[in-house]
Amino acid sequence: MKLDALFRPKSVAIIGASRTPGKVGNILTRNMIEAGFQGEIYPVNPSADEILGLKTYTSVKEIPGELDLAVIAIPAAYVLGVAEECGERGVKALVVISAGFKEIGHEGALLEKQLVEISGRYGMRVQGPNCLGLINTESQLNLSFAPAMPKAGRIGFISQSGALGTAVLDWIVKENIGFHSFVSLGNKGDLDEVDFIEAMGEDEDVRVILLYLESIDRGRRFIEVASRVVRDKPIVVIKGGTSSAGARAAGSHTGALVGSFVAYKTAFEKAGVILAESVEELFNYAVAFTEQPLPKGEGVVIVTNAGGPGILATDLSERLGLRLTNLGSEVRGRLMGRLPEAASVGNPVDILGDARADLYTYAIEEVISEESVNAIVVILTPQAMTESLETAQGIVALQRKHGDKPIICIFMGGGRVQTADEYLRSNGVPSFDFPEKGIKTLAAMYEYARFMEEPEHPPARFDDVDPERVKGILESTRRDSRVVLLANEAAEVMEAYGVNSTRDMLASSAEEAERFADELGYPVVLKIVSPEILHKTDIGGVHLNIGSADEVRTAFEAIMNSVYTFMPQAKIHGVAVSRMVTPGKELIMGMSQDVQFGPLVMFGLGGIYVNFLKDVSFRLAPLSEREAQEMMEETRAYTLLKGIRGEPPSDIDALRETILRVGQLVSDFPEIVEMDLNPVFVYGVGEGCIALDVKITITGD
Amino acid sequence: MKLDALFRPKSVAIIGASRTPGKVGNILTRNMIEAGFQGEIYPVNPSADEILGLKTYTSVKEIPGELDLAVIAIPAAYVLGVAEECGERGVKALVVISAGFKEIGHEGALLEKQLVEISGRYGMRVQGPNCLGLINTESQLNLSFAPAMPKAGRIGFISQSGALGTAVLDWIVKENIGFHSFVSLGNKGDLDEVDFIEAMGEDEDVRVILLYLESIDRGRRFIEVASRVVRDKPIVVIKGGTSSAGARAAGSHTGALVGSFVAYKTAFEKAGVILAESVEELFNYAVAFTEQPLPKGEGVVIVTNAGGPGILATDLSERLGLRLTNLGSEVRGRLMGRLPEAASVGNPVDILGDARADLYTYAIEEVISEESVNAIVVILTPQAMTESLETAQGIVALQRKHGDKPIICIFMGGGRVQTADEYLRSNGVPSFDFPEKGIKTLAAMYEYARFMEEPEHPPARFDDVDPERVKGILESTRRDSRVVLLANEAAEVMEAYGVNSTRDMLASSAEEAERFADELGYPVVLKIVSPEILHKTDIGGVHLNIGSADEVRTAFEAIMNSVYTFMPQAKIHGVAVSRMVTPGKELIMGMSQDVQFGPLVMFGLGGIYVNFLKDVSFRLAPLSEREAQEMMEETRAYTLLKGIRGEPPSDIDALRETILRVGQLVSDFPEIVEMDLNPVFVYGVGEGCIALDVKITITGD
Repeated sequence: MKLDALFRPKSVAIIGASRTPGKVGNILTRNMIEAGFQGEIYPVNPSADEILGLKTYTSVKEIPGELDLAVIAIPAAYVLGVAEECGERGVKALVVISAGFKEIGHEGALLEKQLVEISGRYGMRVQGPNCLGLINTESQLNLSFAPAMPKAGRIGFISQSGALGTAVLDWIVKENIGFHSFVSLGNKGDLDEVDFIEAMGEDEDVRVILLYLESIDRGRRFIEVASRVVRDKPIVVIKGGTSSAGARAAGSHTGALVGSFVAYKTAFEKAGVILAESVEELFNYAVAFTEQPLPKGEGVVIVTNAGGPGILATDLSERLGLRLTNLGSEVRGRLMGRLPEAASVGNPVDILGDARADLYTYAIEEVISEESVNAIVVILTPQAMTESLETAQGIVALQRKHGDKPIICIFMGGGRVQTADEYLRSNGVPSFDFPEKGIKTLAAMYEYARFMEEPEHPPARFDDVDPERVKGILESTRRDSRVVLLANEAAEVMEAYGVNSTRDMLASSAEEAERFADELGYPVVLKIVSPEILHKTDIGGVHLNIGSADEVRTAFEAIMNSVYTFMPQAKIHGVAVSRMVTPGKELIMGMSQDVQFGPLVMFGLGGIYVNFLKDVSFRLAPLSEREAQEMMEETRAYTLLKGIRGEPPSDIDALRETILRVGQLVSDFPEIVEMDLNPVFVYGVGEGCIALDVKITITGD
Repeated sequence: MKLDALFRPKSVAIIGASRTPGKVGNILTRNMIEAGFQGEIYPVNPSADEILGLKTYTSVKEIPGELDLAVIAIPAAYVLGVAEECGERGVKALVVISAGFKEIGHEGALLEKQLVEISGRYGMRVQGPNCLGLINTESQLNLSFAPAMPKAGRIGFISQSGALGTAVLDWIVKENIGFHSFVSLGNKGDLDEVDFIEAMGEDEDVRVILLYLESIDRGRRFIEVASRVVRDKPIVVIKGGTSSAGARAAGSHTGALVGSFVAYKTAFEKAGVILAESVEELFNYAVAFTEQPLPKGEGVVIVTNAGGPGILATDLSERLGLRLTNLGSEVRGRLMGRLPEAASVGNPVDILGDARADLYTYAIEEVISEESVNAIVVILTPQAMTESLETAQGIVALQRKHGDKPIICIFMGGGRVQTADEYLRSNGVPSFDFPEKGIKTLAAMYEYARFMEEPEHPPARFDDVDPERVKGILESTRRDSRVVLLANEAAEVMEAYGVNSTRDMLASSAEEAERFADELGYPVVLKIVSPEILHKTDIGGVHLNIGSADEVRTAFEAIMNSVYTFMPQAKIHGVAVSRMVTPGKELIMGMSQDVQFGPLVMFGLGGIYVNFLKDVSFRLAPLSEREAQEMMEETRAYTLLKGIRGEPPSDIDALRETILRVGQLVSDFPEIVEMDLNPVFVYGVGEGCIALDVKITITGD
């Protein structure tokens, strides 16, 4: 595994170890000892001989033998010197707990840069600075402030907030949840979430990776690594700083740039990372992922002894897109034979309030054996006859027997279900106190299962594109010291990437008009261009629907004659030639560069509605066919495109191809920082689409 | 108080009392004794002398003295006879636990009807049947299966699911939450949620009313009663059966008709009832409402010792519409003087991970004393130096000192915050384990506070309406055995209620066309109506923009001449006269009758977008001015109406008036079951709006 020096050191120096109880250097030393670390622990403190029974060294240089890891918990001012010494000493990695770096401003940022430079010179990787340390239950390592070591488990937790980590560590001990490792990222001066995801990804003992993140600096790399790791184990994230106020708070907290939430959401989706809405959800999901198999199909059955909670669970299932299986008539018949008359053998299966453990076990076994059933939700409320512990025992036995189907329990109540709840949890069956938590957890399992069933979709690439031509256009734009392309330049770029678009071309002679018309394709429109002529049609200044080169020449001359007749004084710029475009359904496409994640492509409903309906969707380029399709399906405009109320369907294939070509263009040319195709008209099936106005902005440098 | 016989009986007969432990009749008797009920308990059982030390009677008739309440827990077949006896005996109310009524189908429904009839004859009110009983801690009454009586408190809980109630009762004992009373509604054969809301509304000891509902039968009355009660105490509801699958489950569960969720949501909003999304939320809100004052303004401050949780709280605050106060420079200055340098005195106020109790107390007191601050959220994570219990004690003291501002605590973690958490809760300060729960609770308090600050808005009533005319039109429609009004009838109805609309009127002579044009108002349009003439304009069959009666006559004759010239054989229906209407922004209005709650008025964006964007909002008629305004503001179309991107604003006043007049019409005529004004064109400010097509459907009988 990567980062072995951090996760599995054979020897650890604690620089800043202290004899004074309550001090960071004392807690760290004690925690290491109490965690049962099997390697060597070397406290470093110039003014002590012995700390908590361990021989103490005045400097890291004095420590004998190999030294894998050094934890630094001394004032910031001394950190550089110590890092230098560690480097010379051959230490492989540093955990820098000390604060006083980037988070305090410019001066600290400089210090942090130097720290990373020094470490880099010696090939040392750095966790932190300003972090709360590291725990690894497997190597019995506790380099954190957490007083109680969590029990061993298979959850890896990476947190950009140290305090949140501490609270969670305290909470999971109470909840009896097992951890594999905990990493506090701190300022991410060197190692960041991407490095730790990669390391935990390679570690077979980690079954699920949890993240609390406020920012991601290496966005593209994050997507790359996460996309690979999620194929092997789920990654669940909670993102702090989703609101503008929250982003401000995050800004003042870590000094890191917090990107817009849309970009983050899109990035998580692209990588197959599951987004949790609360810390509690994060861990609910984690427990289910580590302990239960994934559902292998859509069918969910709810077995309950209480109508109301069954209804609440059903409501939420539907809202979250779970499908309650229609049980077949055979199994319904069998259930009817055994369950009391008033029971319901629909779904939820309501086995009624006086159901004892054997009835639960019977009903669950009947439905779990059905092929159409892929997951079971068991709801129990403590009624007079309820045997909650025996029911729990029955469920655990069934879970072992039918190990390939997940069971989620919702045992509602307090004292009367507590023992059962604990029994379930300690035997690997997730158990929740309210329906909402159980159903949301199951929905997350489905989300991941669906993702895993999908083959990986490679980015679409068209070969009939001409990047050299685009390169030339962008270069000439830059040579002109412009950042916005002219309309004809933008249209040429579109043409080079096979995107159908149109624009006005200004002809000053009939020959030129002919040439332009040939280039644009017929039919075309000719229009006089003069700032002084307002009512162009009235004076014969507009000719529509021109079908051939001959007609173009005739029309050009007719326009000029009319103008000279009616307005001989008018200043004439020329005659605009453009494709004759029939109005279609109005859409919008576009792209903007996200600082962290790169080109974010947009698709949505156009026209006057775009600004207030905001019926748009986003994906990060490069795009797969599937992503382009999803972009369309996510908008409500898609209903319109499919054809509603007798209106014919639109050319969805053409739109998808256009989205993909735009995606390919902006991936090939990262210097394009903004792009708008507005409006894009789409026509009936087979009739294509066209961008009427294309605006492209490139970087200034 | 109403329902005194139920909530404060002096004597209770338990019909079906049993000596056999585990049997319902035994549990009920034991629970009554253990609850410490001070009145008389009379077990009734023909085959026992004594049950749990109480003298037992063979029949209710034998019981001496007054008898307020009888609980019935015997097979359904015997219930009618016993109810008859109770009636003769002078019992005032019945709690019917027995199942086997409406919930089992037609036969049971019949039995239930007879039970209610018998009780009605004797003036007895009935709770149930098929219910799980009643608890009232104040009168030490436990007529339920709940084994542990909850501690006394001020929460009233009414549940349509008995099992959910049992689970909750078990849960609140564990959570140490106090209850005033618990009512299981059962089948609601007689007494329903409205009766119990009314009773709890009048009970000064109840400070908040919680409801779990699957259906409401007396919708209008529910709104009436709830609207009155919420002025005095909050009502929080969780609604089961919001999804179509959930509604099916609810249907099979209680046999009650479950209305569409939109109507319920609208009804709750109209009444000022708060909708919770989960059972846990229901109780989180309840605890905060009973123990904390309402915030008196918008300003919230978060004080935290941890950045990450502060950010999560900030994110959610913004999402839920809470406003984080900008602290004034003075208080910021004072805070900066005392807090460590790296602390943040923005909002969240981050007092850093090593903050001890005194620093918390100091910071909270500084901000709570600010006039702009109306509520405080305190977040604590257990760090090395954290004094969680001392901090909790400081907060409770501050809460007592500044009793008029709510404090919500979020103490994250497990064992290290448990004692503090319990201290806070038992001293009246709501404490949560995760930021999400605390912030959502505070948001619910704000929702209620805002509602309470608003004056009551009476329904708008216009006097210039002509109900007699509408009555006549509806009567003549019914006489014709039609349920859909003709276009001109609908237009007349609109006119009678002052709604601007137009329609085609079919003239067969120039004189008639003149008369119609005078009626409609100028300018008008004349159009030939013939199934055989498709291209009306081409043969001179359309005249636009006709300004006077003379011109109408000329146009009529010109049209007829043209038609006879070009298509002498065509079958002519006549000439349609209609107001010349300029296209405006396209909206839609409408109404449909909800079975439970009556006329549900709709407003939204019209045109081809209405079907897929569903940008519509609903309110129950009659409507106040404020409700009509809110209906518009809730749609995204409102941004368009206010004017965007240089587009002029629309005549919002005219739209609001139209909505109100439609609301008044459908309130005055409940026989109107459906109505569509589609499209409604709206013009610039002062230029009004017009309904182009009005469809009105009435009841058949």
